[in-house]
Amino acid sequence: MSFFQKVLKDPVHDEIVVDDPWIWRIINTSAMQRLRRIRQLGTSYLTFHGAEHSRFTHSLGVYETMRRVLSYLEKEFGWPRDDRERKLALAAALLHDVGHGPFSHTFETVYPVHHEEWTKRIMLEDDEMATLLAEIDDEFGPDLVGILNKNGKHRTIEQLITSQLDVDRMDYLLRDAMNTGVNYGRFELGRLIRSLALADGSIMLKASGVHTAEQYILARYFMYTQVYLHPVTIGSDVLVGNILRRAGELWSAGKLQDMPHFLKAFFVEQSTVSVKDYLAIDESTLLYAFRMWASTDDVVLSDLAERFLNRRLLAPIVRAEPTSEEWAALRTSARAMGFHPEYYISGRTSEISAYVYRGSGIPVLRQDGSKSELSMESRIVRSLIPDTEYRLFLPKEMVEGDHAVAERVRSIIYQEG
Amino acid sequence: MSFFQKVLKDPVHDEIVVDDPWIWRIINTSAMQRLRRIRQLGTSYLTFHGAEHSRFTHSLGVYETMRRVLSYLEKEFGWPRDDRERKLALAAALLHDVGHGPFSHTFETVYPVHHEEWTKRIMLEDDEMATLLAEIDDEFGPDLVGILNKNGKHRTIEQLITSQLDVDRMDYLLRDAMNTGVNYGRFELGRLIRSLALADGSIMLKASGVHTAEQYILARYFMYTQVYLHPVTIGSDVLVGNILRRAGELWSAGKLQDMPHFLKAFFVEQSTVSVKDYLAIDESTLLYAFRMWASTDDVVLSDLAERFLNRRLLAPIVRAEPTSEEWAALRTSARAMGFHPEYYISGRTSEISAYVYRGSGIPVLRQDGSKSELSMESRIVRSLIPDTEYRLFLPKEMVEGDHAVAERVRSIIYQEG
Amino acid sequence: MSFFQKVLKDPVHDEIVVDDPWIWRIINTSAMQRLRRIRQLGTSYLTFHGAEHSRFTHSLGVYETMRRVLSYLEKEFGWPRDDRERKLALAAALLHDVGHGPFSHTFETVYPVHHEEWTKRIMLEDDEMATLLAEIDDEFGPDLVGILNKNGKHRTIEQLITSQLDVDRMDYLLRDAMNTGVNYGRFELGRLIRSLALADGSIMLKASGVHTAEQYILARYFMYTQVYLHPVTIGSDVLVGNILRRAGELWSAGKLQDMPHFLKAFFVEQSTVSVKDYLAIDESTLLYAFRMWASTDDVVLSDLAERFLNRRLLAPIVRAEPTSEEWAALRTSARAMGFHPEYYISGRTSEISAYVYRGSGIPVLRQDGSKSELSMESRIVRSLIPDTEYRLFLPKEMVEGDHAVAERVRSIIYQEG
Amino acid sequence: MSFFQKVLKDPVHDEIVVDDPWIWRIINTSAMQRLRRIRQLGTSYLTFHGAEHSRFTHSLGVYETMRRVLSYLEKEFGWPRDDRERKLALAAALLHDVGHGPFSHTFETVYPVHHEEWTKRIMLEDDEMATLLAEIDDEFGPDLVGILNKNGKHRTIEQLITSQLDVDRMDYLLRDAMNTGVNYGRFELGRLIRSLALADGSIMLKASGVHTAEQYILARYFMYTQVYLHPVTIGSDVLVGNILRRAGELWSAGKLQDMPHFLKAFFVEQSTVSVKDYLAIDESTLLYAFRMWASTDDVVLSDLAERFLNRRLLAPIVRAEPTSEEWAALRTSARAMGFHPEYYISGRTSEISAYVYRGSGIPVLRQDGSKSELSMESRIVRSLIPDTEYRLFLPKEMVEGDHAVAERVRSIIYQEG
Repeated sequence: MSFFQKVLKDPVHDEIVVDDPWIWRIINTSAMQRLRRIRQLGTSYLTFHGAEHSRFTHSLGVYETMRRVLSYLEKEFGWPRDDRERKLALAAALLHDVGHGPFSHTFETVYPVHHEEWTKRIMLEDDEMATLLAEIDDEFGPDLVGILNKNGKHRTIEQLITSQLDVDRMDYLLRDAMNTGVNYGRFELGRLIRSLALADGSIMLKASGVHTAEQYILARYFMYTQVYLHPVTIGSDVLVGNILRRAGELWSAGKLQDMPHFLKAFFVEQSTVSVKDYLAIDESTLLYAFRMWASTDDVVLSDLAERFLNRRLLAPIVRAEPTSEEWAALRTSARAMGFHPEYYISGRTSEISAYVYRGSGIPVLRQDGSKSELSMESRIVRSLIPDTEYRLFLPKEMVEGDHAVAERVRSIIYQEG
Repeated sequence: MSFFQKVLKDPVHDEIVVDDPWIWRIINTSAMQRLRRIRQLGTSYLTFHGAEHSRFTHSLGVYETMRRVLSYLEKEFGWPRDDRERKLALAAALLHDVGHGPFSHTFETVYPVHHEEWTKRIMLEDDEMATLLAEIDDEFGPDLVGILNKNGKHRTIEQLITSQLDVDRMDYLLRDAMNTGVNYGRFELGRLIRSLALADGSIMLKASGVHTAEQYILARYFMYTQVYLHPVTIGSDVLVGNILRRAGELWSAGKLQDMPHFLKAFFVEQSTVSVKDYLAIDESTLLYAFRMWASTDDVVLSDLAERFLNRRLLAPIVRAEPTSEEWAALRTSARAMGFHPEYYISGRTSEISAYVYRGSGIPVLRQDGSKSELSMESRIVRSLIPDTEYRLFLPKEMVEGDHAVAERVRSIIYQEG
Repeated sequence: MSFFQKVLKDPVHDEIVVDDPWIWRIINTSAMQRLRRIRQLGTSYLTFHGAEHSRFTHSLGVYETMRRVLSYLEKEFGWPRDDRERKLALAAALLHDVGHGPFSHTFETVYPVHHEEWTKRIMLEDDEMATLLAEIDDEFGPDLVGILNKNGKHRTIEQLITSQLDVDRMDYLLRDAMNTGVNYGRFELGRLIRSLALADGSIMLKASGVHTAEQYILARYFMYTQVYLHPVTIGSDVLVGNILRRAGELWSAGKLQDMPHFLKAFFVEQSTVSVKDYLAIDESTLLYAFRMWASTDDVVLSDLAERFLNRRLLAPIVRAEPTSEEWAALRTSARAMGFHPEYYISGRTSEISAYVYRGSGIPVLRQDGSKSELSMESRIVRSLIPDTEYRLFLPKEMVEGDHAVAERVRSIIYQEG
Repeated sequence: MSFFQKVLKDPVHDEIVVDDPWIWRIINTSAMQRLRRIRQLGTSYLTFHGAEHSRFTHSLGVYETMRRVLSYLEKEFGWPRDDRERKLALAAALLHDVGHGPFSHTFETVYPVHHEEWTKRIMLEDDEMATLLAEIDDEFGPDLVGILNKNGKHRTIEQLITSQLDVDRMDYLLRDAMNTGVNYGRFELGRLIRSLALADGSIMLKASGVHTAEQYILARYFMYTQVYLHPVTIGSDVLVGNILRRAGELWSAGKLQDMPHFLKAFFVEQSTVSVKDYLAIDESTLLYAFRMWASTDDVVLSDLAERFLNRRLLAPIVRAEPTSEEWAALRTSARAMGFHPEYYISGRTSEISAYVYRGSGIPVLRQDGSKSELSMESRIVRSLIPDTEYRLFLPKEMVEGDHAVAERVRSIIYQEG
């Protein structure tokens, strides 16, 4: 009984097996543990109450999915060829989200550095992480960054980490479905893995797996239309964005006292935030900030923060983008009710893109060795043309009730746009 | 289509049905929404990574379980007799946990008011809540408090809310099992509900339901032994307690600058914290505090906080409680390694109590109308005698490794106690 | 506790609730109990070993689904209006498959009466059943037959029993998926039910339920392509058909002694089989016959029967329908190996039809009251154009191995057809 | 892609992996395929409608469980040491039930050879099977028989096949629970497997796995009390036994014409049935016989058969075994209603034995290397003292209704016995 093995119970994969002490140490880094304090689905928990799971559990799931994929590929295709390549694949899977910040994409509206950039910087600059990665060899960290940069040196791993058939999606579709309590995200993970082929260093889909892949692509389609782009969730994101924008403007203008220490760096214009600064913030920091701001002097900021904390969200209206006349009228109405139009009326276009076949479609390997692409093989996949939907967000009070403003707003937003 | 109905997807009950707008408004109070920021299982997520669900989702689940129980009891026993009683039962279920604070019982070591007291105060003193409850009638809020006080006015509801056969346990066993990913907490909810009988205003178990109840009691037994009292989790609780104690002592002594605004009231001796103050704190407040403290001047506090955030927890040792000589020796060893014994070495006795038959056992109604008690009917339940287990917690560095101190500590803790 | 209630545990719906003693008596009729001896998916268990469930369990599931649909429609749309209509709907659901015979459609190749005809005759002619139905009133049985005939007298029930949005499909997709162990047939049953609307006596889909319906239609698409039309299953059906054909021809020619008593009536040309005769046969009758035939004198019949019993099935070849020259060559090859071409080589065209929009599409009710049709609202559904696939079946020995005949056969079937 | 692999979808284990063509050929033997026509739970489907799964699917599940156990033991304990031992373990798992007959134990009342005897004979005498086993080597078949005989040559495999911690139970508890739709049989299979230890060639339970084993033992306890020994099921077994006994007596006396060919051998006194004869019968043979008998001349046999087919079962009465006076009175009552007492009144004692600790308890390996036994380590397991329950079965007509006989019978059976 001398071998190392940690088995973690998991609601999606039943068990997550860590049989390498080095992987266990990566899991226990401060950077990884921080992901426990960042929700996987941002503000979705305000729509689907069960969506309370973190990026940390998802990262473990991506690792486990990669572990299973590698075990299959090794048996059937003799890849990865060596332990270093195997470790690269596992570490890339585990760490691919390590740079995520609180309320992820929304936070990037404040400090516009993409989370993937942070992922790379953490790999190279965070002492604890960099030291651990260097235990393998000096090139290990840079190679991980190279994979994220798709520099082509480890093409198979790149595809397994970021493509339309990657381990990231395989885990999050299943996990998000389970936690939200919907059935949409289900597909046959085991069978999908066994439908992978490796040809000329490229991950492909065996032709016999087309229906399995259809199910997986549809899971994505349904999760996007039913969960990820749910108007209430998008409205919550918009609200978070407006809160952060208002706080930033007040802070820059010297009009805000209540600013959590750890956030300050992010609100200084043209600042360069260090990896250490970045790792110091998480969703508890922002929630704490919102709590502070809910009782700050500025009425706009305090009201917005209070709305978020107590789930008095902006109401979503599905319609065409307003014309400039309509915008003007809406702004006037907002002002008439005391709502600052810049922070209370917002529009957002969401893109539903279940499958992209230009350039990066899923390659299919036919039994005779010839190649194709998934949308060529499946009429269903072909039907999933990317689509967009526009939504307008504004306070419920502006739309509901018997007063004159609400009537006017309703006449604007519900007429043909 | 004029009737009101909200259907919330739920990972445990599939759907949670709210068919009363008044209930919907209670769900949307600030006090209830705050429960989204308090985890159901406190620090368990450091042991079972999936245990990230909140008291909010649990509260919805308790409500839904009560709704199903009422629907059954109404059909079979004509109870509740009127809509007010029905609303009392539903509101009591939904609100029973509303007074929980961050890291619940551990936080009570700082400010020793039991969460149930807070629940009652919120019902009566929180403006938004009290107003909503008064919409039914002036006695509604006080009646809810009476139920929690077990004043006997609504005995059936009291039993459904707090007894060994209550809707609280029914939901949490299933929910905690699902989220941690274990199978232990499973039992036949539908069948257990149908095994309830109502006789002389008392909730009893039909004799035909003894095996179903056995399964439910065992679910509790397993969740306690395998999940709730997991030594790693208890160690995390101990750590949180020690952090808060250290911070409190420093603050009282005027030696701590870094104190989140919202927490201050709790650290003032003999203060009376208002409901408003209490509702202002949640787990993000504490996590934020820990973040601050991780870089504060006091080396004890900063180290403890950093340990919690980065999951370098205290190691649990299962053994008898140390003798006073052993304690002295352990303290000396701790000091030798620079660990302040008061904050780094702790002991804790955990009680496993799956079923209590003295006084409050589960009453059983036999088919011939005679009465019994569950442990009389089930040899398995009878076998579940409450038990305790002692664990000693100390830094891993004190136990592991080749140095002299560790050897000494090992010789102390592993000899017969 | 005086009310009647039977709760049956069910692997799909958890519980099936029978709260009407009359329904319970229908379940316990000889005609219904016979369905326990007829598998829901015919020969599919030879492909998916778990597909061993019977038409009986499915019928209970259809009943339960109808019960839930009625409960919803009653609450939201006040339909059904009276208990008789409710009973009609429940009985129609429970009994819709009562006329199924062993290996259903395949058996119709022997005695070409459609199972739905038998369902109607059983309702009217089986003494036990007809008496039970007449307990409601004299028109009850005829009204059930009218529903199956779609005579328009009970249009809503007709639609719930047989349409593209019927309770039959809702149950079988879920049940077949669970038993075969695939994930394909999953959809949100509760949400689909709540997406139903009743307008002018017609069952429609609310526009808000389009994505839920997409999932349900896709479940059907996947179950057809992956399970129901699996080539190995179709090959098993073909084999059963050939066995029965051979037995019939031998019997007609007076060359077969081994004929189970109960089957005789079906093999006499132009006979009229009574309901009593029909109810006397089930799958155990056919399996018993196959056992007898496996050791009968005729080498063709005995070999075919033995192949079925021991799962040495015909091999499926997916290709275009052979030309007449190819057919001739295949027949010659079969004869060369001692296989009677008429019984060993067969072709079959299978139709995949997940959604049919001509005439009978699923009507959609938009929020503004206007009407549409599902394929107009969903690009995915539109993509599911009915399709056909041709398969050729022949003994594996003719295709595999090194001998000259196999080489010749391979050259025929694998060249461009 | 040259390696052999068959992946079968399974409702319990998700996937059953066959990666050895030799195993695949064993699965496809006539003897194994026959198990598809024998239900795993005999007559239980008359109580739990979902219990329609066969011994075949269970056998695949036992194989898969063994495969997982071997994979774990190999990694952790280096056993099995060679491929032959691995094959022995897998074949023993797959074939352990191959000798089961229709309605298993009940059928043994007609022809009293235990199914395990048949299993051994099939291994040695069935041509197809013996040939396949001899492909490994001449001793392979005899070694398998030795394992069933517990001759000690392959002790580890013996324990994995037949002990209180065997792969047979692991699969059937999960599978029977899933199919009946109850939650009782659930336990953590993966964790139980990882709790196994191998010490001195003996399978033991690690002390850390005591709670996991408790859950597994309790699963057994619940399945016995709630499912396997359900009085309605036992009553169905009794009925089958009485039918077979009556048929046998009539046949011996030359008074029965209707006897399916394949059954004859079993009804001849002191006959020696060959393996070939035995393999020719399955549940379809018996159901066919019951169908014939339902319209045979003997009124007792025809009524009993008809009762079974149409689920008009004997009513179970839970009470003490009747005294001889009570028996006499019951018989008189039966005769008064025209029921032959010998076939219509039966008693049966069922033994609930979830755990047996005498001699063959589950050995526990403590961390310090010392040994114990599960009931020493677990108070719950200790509480599961084997118990018996007596049930009396008689026609419902004798107990229900207003007539004098029923009143008399009720006065007999419901008084203190």
